[in-house]
Amino acid sequence: MRPTGKLHLGHWVGALQSWLLLQEQHECIFSIVDWHAYMGEYAQSHEISEHIIDMAADWLACGIDPDRSVLFVQSEVPEHLELYMILSCITPLGWLERNPTYKEQLREIKSRDLQTFGFLGYPVLQAADILLYKANVVPIGEDQLPHLELAREIARRFNSIYKTDIFPDCEPVLTKTPRLLGVDGRKMSKSYDNAINLADSPHEIQKKVSRMFTDPKRIKITDHGHPEACNVYSYYQVFAQQESKAVYDWCTGAKKGCTECKAFLAQSILMQLALLQEKRETLMKNKDRIRDILNMGRKKAQAMARQTLEEIKEIIF
Amino acid sequence: MRPTGKLHLGHWVGALQSWLLLQEQHECIFSIVDWHAYMGEYAQSHEISEHIIDMAADWLACGIDPDRSVLFVQSEVPEHLELYMILSCITPLGWLERNPTYKEQLREIKSRDLQTFGFLGYPVLQAADILLYKANVVPIGEDQLPHLELAREIARRFNSIYKTDIFPDCEPVLTKTPRLLGVDGRKMSKSYDNAINLADSPHEIQKKVSRMFTDPKRIKITDHGHPEACNVYSYYQVFAQQESKAVYDWCTGAKKGCTECKAFLAQSILMQLALLQEKRETLMKNKDRIRDILNMGRKKAQAMARQTLEEIKEIIF
Repeated sequence: MRPTGKLHLGHWVGALQSWLLLQEQHECIFSIVDWHAYMGEYAQSHEISEHIIDMAADWLACGIDPDRSVLFVQSEVPEHLELYMILSCITPLGWLERNPTYKEQLREIKSRDLQTFGFLGYPVLQAADILLYKANVVPIGEDQLPHLELAREIARRFNSIYKTDIFPDCEPVLTKTPRLLGVDGRKMSKSYDNAINLADSPHEIQKKVSRMFTDPKRIKITDHGHPEACNVYSYYQVFAQQESKAVYDWCTGAKKGCTECKAFLAQSILMQLALLQEKRETLMKNKDRIRDILNMGRKKAQAMARQTLEEIKEIIF
Repeated sequence: MRPTGKLHLGHWVGALQSWLLLQEQHECIFSIVDWHAYMGEYAQSHEISEHIIDMAADWLACGIDPDRSVLFVQSEVPEHLELYMILSCITPLGWLERNPTYKEQLREIKSRDLQTFGFLGYPVLQAADILLYKANVVPIGEDQLPHLELAREIARRFNSIYKTDIFPDCEPVLTKTPRLLGVDGRKMSKSYDNAINLADSPHEIQKKVSRMFTDPKRIKITDHGHPEACNVYSYYQVFAQQESKAVYDWCTGAKKGCTECKAFLAQSILMQLALLQEKRETLMKNKDRIRDILNMGRKKAQAMARQTLEEIKEIIF
């Protein structure tokens, strides 16, 4: 995951909940990919180091267990760049230029200049991140499927050029992404400033929830509402599922108003987040502890990475 | 210099003689750039490690002094890849795609597939090699001038994005390249198999010289020759300048034949190479000594590289 800002509820119920499940069944490696962040954010790169600590705190607070999983910062394991160089040299330029995600990003993102050599190599570095640990499964969102396919093709090309089978075929594990929209009803995103962050204070969360758009057809409290068209109701389904039936009745039966409904939702979110936030706060008061965990992760990751890289060099040199 | 094979007379009287002069006046850093070799030779990459030792032996035998200059292998200083990544992210793709040397190579070199992502980044890695040591002057052949200009532009762009002056402007020192052609009269090159290598045995050198093309208009020994049109005579001007006047007289006056003339040239070359070859042979009998020298160089280079990289990271993160 790229350290580009604080994590929000969308990350939590999407990626992180899936990661916790994977952590139960697999030997997991979670990387804060700061080089990937730099590729897109080279003009605001001074923010990256702060984001790294924030992201590690978010992960740990959510339940990523550093004794069970490896948690590290990409740039602290220089083997990633060595494999990146090697894979760069066998990756046909056309594969990257024709990559649909790349073309879309160049088209859509106008606020930053992404027409750089480095940004074209984004999926090659992803391939290195995956192959350095000979990953069997990779948890990704659906939008990242073309990149994983590229990583698989690069692995196959390496295996074929050097007549080896060092890189296993890796499979995607699609992270469930419940349609949790931002408080304004658009996609939840830092850049839209419509996200509820895991680190937000109770006051901030209450304020953000109170401003959420509800059913536009319910103007007065006596109007019957349509929960299926209401963003607040979709939050209930994620954060207060037990209560969501009662809420449906209030709304359709015009028994309670939106203000009260949102106040109750805010309370539910706060309760769900309480433990996590407490843990996060304790961690942030002791950043040395976070640094220690990242250092421990770096050592474990680097030991694995070095071994793979030695095997690779044995093959190519 | 890329470790793509044994050095030949063209390298010696071109690059290496210039390097020896530079070594007298500057703190020099000479790098065996194996990542650059890999970019073009990924399909024959198993030869690179042997070429590294060969190249180091050639350099040392020529007089590169490891106590005075830094002599190291690029891939052994991973800081090169870190700076490569950083510069990649600020280098506009168009600068590389429009690079005339790149376009020419794609057009001319048909024997290898160079349409890879890595090969496009060739000059970015060169820029990292130069900027990591804040080089003031860079000895290059005329054909490399566009690449140096690109390195200067990348340095200026970095300085401008981050409002710094960390990278000084570097100037080229053009290595004199006397027009020393291959034994068949074409450009001297490993790929044409027309080169006299520094490591060739006396027998090989005699054989190669004896096959050199001479003045095509001088068919019989009694014909008057035209030294200015003779490749052998141009060798005399480089390797036996004192004798070249006498040779001119022999040839134009039809006093001696080409066979005798070539035998004498071979002797002159052998004499010039004698010390170098003796030194080279001693080195190759003790490859551990070569490795030690390269390790010492790596330490010196890495200390400098680390310092620059720390300064760079201070600026961008």
